Amino acid sequence: MHVGSWKDVEGKAVTEAGAGGVTIRVLMGENVGAPNFTLRHFEVAPGGHTPFHAHPWEHEVFVLSGKGKVKRKDDETEVGPGSFVFVPPDEEHAFENAGNENFSFLCAIPATKICLR
Amino acid sequence: MHVGSWKDVEGKAVTEAGAGGVTIRVLMGENVGAPNFTLRHFEVAPGGHTPFHAHPWEHEVFVLSGKGKVKRKDDETEVGPGSFVFVPPDEEHAFENAGNENFSFLCAIPATKICLR
Repeated sequence: MHVGSWKDVEGKAVTEAGAGGVTIRVLMGENVGAPNFTLRHFEVAPGGHTPFHAHPWEHEVFVLSGKGKVKRKDDETEVGPGSFVFVPPDEEHAFENAGNENFSFLCAIPATKICLR
Repeated sequence: MHVGSWKDVEGKAVTEAGAGGVTIRVLMGENVGAPNFTLRHFEVAPGGHTPFHAHPWEHEVFVLSGKGKVKRKDDETEVGPGSFVFVPPDEEHAFENAGNENFSFLCAIPATKICLR
């Protein structure tokens, strides 16, 4: 068993093209021997956003704090604490801070070995 | 894409032997076509607890609110908002409310087809 707190995990800036003001922390994945999926913590600073992109694996997102928008090809939806978002494989999406405080959420993805199946 | 809020998902009492005061909400799983893993929301009332048990699949847990304890065979650890817990397959564990308010957490598990591999 592994017990920790997200604040004790080193945050790294997301440098992918199209991202701005985003910090990622990998909570549970290969670092703890998780066999099937990885849980990451994201903080998006005011004005920040993840890239608008698509990829062949899904996201399961749960919003922890702040005010955000999840963007799709043709529209967007406001989200806040307690919101959850399922992004199917290959659907374009982005998460954007829509408030004045950090927008933070959890995002789970399948393990690499599943992504590459 | 599917967007919702945990409060709008119907809660069900966990009736498994050894559980008490536990409400589960399945946020994203087969209900949204999630292919690899399922995210559930748990609320444990004051005095409540999940069963002390083990099973051949892992948990990835993130604590949202309240004060709790995660119990292992020989010891226990206090957890609170922002704590995360990785429970490997086959390790005995239970989650217990250790405060006076609801203790709530997210718990992700692999999809059934993975559990049965």
